[in-house]
Amino acid sequence: MKLASFINKSTGTASIGAVLDDGILDLHAASGGELPNAMIPFLELGEAGMARARELAAAGGDLLSADDIELQAPVPRPGKIMHTSCNFSAHLEELTTWQEPEWQSHNWSDFHFEHPTGFLEAPSSVVPHGASVKIPHFTQQLDYEIEIGVIIGKKGFRIPKEEAFDYVAGLTIFNDLSARDIQAREHSNMVILLGKSFDGSCPLGPYLVTMDEIDDPDNMKLNLTLNGEERQNSSTANMVYKIAEMVAWWSNTTLEPGDVLTTGSPPGVISGMRDPVYLKPGDQIDCTVEHLGTLTTHIVE
Amino acid sequence: MKLASFINKSTGTASIGAVLDDGILDLHAASGGELPNAMIPFLELGEAGMARARELAAAGGDLLSADDIELQAPVPRPGKIMHTSCNFSAHLEELTTWQEPEWQSHNWSDFHFEHPTGFLEAPSSVVPHGASVKIPHFTQQLDYEIEIGVIIGKKGFRIPKEEAFDYVAGLTIFNDLSARDIQAREHSNMVILLGKSFDGSCPLGPYLVTMDEIDDPDNMKLNLTLNGEERQNSSTANMVYKIAEMVAWWSNTTLEPGDVLTTGSPPGVISGMRDPVYLKPGDQIDCTVEHLGTLTTHIVE
Repeated sequence: MKLASFINKSTGTASIGAVLDDGILDLHAASGGELPNAMIPFLELGEAGMARARELAAAGGDLLSADDIELQAPVPRPGKIMHTSCNFSAHLEELTTWQEPEWQSHNWSDFHFEHPTGFLEAPSSVVPHGASVKIPHFTQQLDYEIEIGVIIGKKGFRIPKEEAFDYVAGLTIFNDLSARDIQAREHSNMVILLGKSFDGSCPLGPYLVTMDEIDDPDNMKLNLTLNGEERQNSSTANMVYKIAEMVAWWSNTTLEPGDVLTTGSPPGVISGMRDPVYLKPGDQIDCTVEHLGTLTTHIVE
Repeated sequence: MKLASFINKSTGTASIGAVLDDGILDLHAASGGELPNAMIPFLELGEAGMARARELAAAGGDLLSADDIELQAPVPRPGKIMHTSCNFSAHLEELTTWQEPEWQSHNWSDFHFEHPTGFLEAPSSVVPHGASVKIPHFTQQLDYEIEIGVIIGKKGFRIPKEEAFDYVAGLTIFNDLSARDIQAREHSNMVILLGKSFDGSCPLGPYLVTMDEIDDPDNMKLNLTLNGEERQNSSTANMVYKIAEMVAWWSNTTLEPGDVLTTGSPPGVISGMRDPVYLKPGDQIDCTVEHLGTLTTHIVE
């Protein structure tokens, strides 16, 4: 099942829906208000809510078209967004050859994998599929990164790796927009915030895709194009920590429904290039992940 | 005015209140439901909500006693919590003399102050005054840090330093509990997450104190005791970036009502000591800040 968060243009109200072949079924309306009109309360219902949504989707009904709605990110405001750093070793390799002087003192070659490491992104940074993201005034080095967002469906603490997917509601696509110049200065102080958390830095979507639609989460193709030109092409098979290991590790702090864990990105980012040309107004980024669809982001002035 | 978030023990419902000399006035009840029963929606009302709260507080009424309520953090679940790293230069100095081998490779002496740098803490880590915090299973090096939490009252983007306090609802106390061993490993990879974001790592409270009760935010005494023994003693006068500068810088991403900015901590943390004895079950930490009261935290197994 594919689930969407959206605003109904004719009523101006938010709701959630099942994405069917011919349109979107408003699950809140179709259930007569039994199912909530927002994704986090829906996920908090657990398997019962998901089962009811499947019944309603199978029964069908009045569908909304793409023109009827303003799509939101599947979880418009997650409780927390936890990034896993350098989770594709080939991305770490391109970091170590970084050209900018600001990065050269960082000793990325000492990066260790004793366990996952990462950082949080501001929930206020989330924008949906199709969003236009302004280049922040503080950066000359705006970059993309294709990743997968793992959406938590059930509260959990110290989740065993073997049970990880019991706690996952589904997956979505994430374009980890990064301001490399400020990120480099923040990394010099061994932290990161504004380089990854600015308005619009977290395009997420288009949908939450439940795990039954995904045959093997550890073998999904990822592909990013910039203005139609392929820039990143990899597979989740190349991740250092697979999704189940990420869930297990990050559940060392309590995970809650709607929380998002991000997988890290494969190589091919702009800042890993010899003559980097950073994102500019008019650029279009398309992030495609097998089974999950395509997340499009427009860069504007 | 001092504002509290709490749960009324007799009804089990959450509300917000004005803390008066003889007890707490439930602002939601006293306003006949006109004022919301949660802090963020209250802050979103802006000056109108604050003025109505002041009227109600001046009129008085039936007050709740400390026994009637379960105190919550003033903002139990902020949208984002933005830390400012090493904002007391003397704390940076003690970091550079750190004894643990894990820290020695970090070149903290290269820490730069071109602009504030920092990181985000998970909103799910917040606990109130009086909380008992479990020592996380993954650390042998649990430490304290007294800080001030700046609670945003009004949505703002690129706020001029001169207008910063127009966007501040008030201040509270923050005990930045830190797992130093995992923090050190995360810093080795130039990031931080679990070392600062575990369950209970963000004691915040007891109250939101509005700015009219604070004569000079840049000259407030801070004092932390561990089991009654003074460990940290400083003043906001010693901050590298003052509160107005923090608001200005971090508003490079949109700030929203209920967001919390933290000031960083003065020297005196356990991990800066020659023979560190880390927090253990039974320890009591009292963080006192001039005008803001005392935030108490109990460490348990």
